[in-house]
Amino acid sequence: MSKVKVSAFSVSLDGFGAGPRQDLENPLGVRGLELHAWFLKTAVFRKIHHLAGGSQGVDNDFAARSFENVGAWILGRNMFGPIRGPWPDDSWKGWWADEPPYHVPVFVLSHYERPPLPMKGNTTFYFVTDGPESALKQAKEAANGQDVRIGGGVSTIRQYLTAGHIHEIHLAFSPVLLGEGENLFAGIHFPKLGFKPVQSTAGEEATHVILKRA
Amino acid sequence: MSKVKVSAFSVSLDGFGAGPRQDLENPLGVRGLELHAWFLKTAVFRKIHHLAGGSQGVDNDFAARSFENVGAWILGRNMFGPIRGPWPDDSWKGWWADEPPYHVPVFVLSHYERPPLPMKGNTTFYFVTDGPESALKQAKEAANGQDVRIGGGVSTIRQYLTAGHIHEIHLAFSPVLLGEGENLFAGIHFPKLGFKPVQSTAGEEATHVILKRA
Repeated sequence: MSKVKVSAFSVSLDGFGAGPRQDLENPLGVRGLELHAWFLKTAVFRKIHHLAGGSQGVDNDFAARSFENVGAWILGRNMFGPIRGPWPDDSWKGWWADEPPYHVPVFVLSHYERPPLPMKGNTTFYFVTDGPESALKQAKEAANGQDVRIGGGVSTIRQYLTAGHIHEIHLAFSPVLLGEGENLFAGIHFPKLGFKPVQSTAGEEATHVILKRA
Repeated sequence: MSKVKVSAFSVSLDGFGAGPRQDLENPLGVRGLELHAWFLKTAVFRKIHHLAGGSQGVDNDFAARSFENVGAWILGRNMFGPIRGPWPDDSWKGWWADEPPYHVPVFVLSHYERPPLPMKGNTTFYFVTDGPESALKQAKEAANGQDVRIGGGVSTIRQYLTAGHIHEIHLAFSPVLLGEGENLFAGIHFPKLGFKPVQSTAGEEATHVILKRA
């Protein structure tokens, strides 16, 4: 069955999925990149960026798994770019240069309309201005039986989570303390939302935990 | 050098060191015991309770390490018992029956005086009513060059942590989500307090992380 899932989402030991003060220089917030150290080392990540080498092993297996059976993505506006408010023009095309790593339709939550943006490698960004429920409906249709992956950021995940739409979450706990930023857990009662950990596996650089909704 | 440390302190993935609604039936709060599943299985735990068997391995090694070079303990009042307010009498002697697992002086923070309570196996509970700084001073003297271990609970650890007294913390992350209870991380900025993770090791049932202050 088609699932709505979060995969390979990195968090700190103190629960932050991004650092504070996101901007053009710090797309993931200050120190946010440290959360993803495990992923940056993998062969999967390097292959996405047309680089050879990279680690094999548990972390790489989880990275590979995160891209399997994904028919569409949903991203919050900040995952797409640093621009806040109305689009000044159509020049910003995402953080990923010409060929984003999605290769499927990507639905970007935004308050501001913009025409669909087709990119190299079969990724098209669609800007959804009528809310997360509409984005999910469109993503499910586009996924055509495959899974919808909620890419983030934290507030987008929290929104779909508390609305009861997410079936499965794979978190990668990095051995990092941030102290501030965007917290995934604060005020969210995962057990009451029906989630419990069904797997915990030590990778080389992160601990991978799978949460499933009963 | 003598250290002030927290050892083998179990937390959930969402940062809780105890469940909600602590009472006589749930000394660790509702579902709090699940956090300690890794510890309860170890040979170290079983030996404390004069039971044979139990697991060897990484979790057991960290359990053993947590009792090494401890010259005195500090406990919050709730770690000692479920009684709130003044002591009705001296009949409550802790959660541990005749022979508590400490075998050294234990300083219990309380607002209510009570004479020292010597127990079998060399544990004596001292009730300190003039604040955590005084308890720490007394514990350091009693430890006589060995380390002082802050046993908990969460609020006691947070108090010593934010006052800058703790040098090292060993957390055991259990693959459990509690959703509510006493949160170790909420509002505490570990990096600003000088802490960073220096080790992360997968045990059989928990991930062991060592935080040290620079």
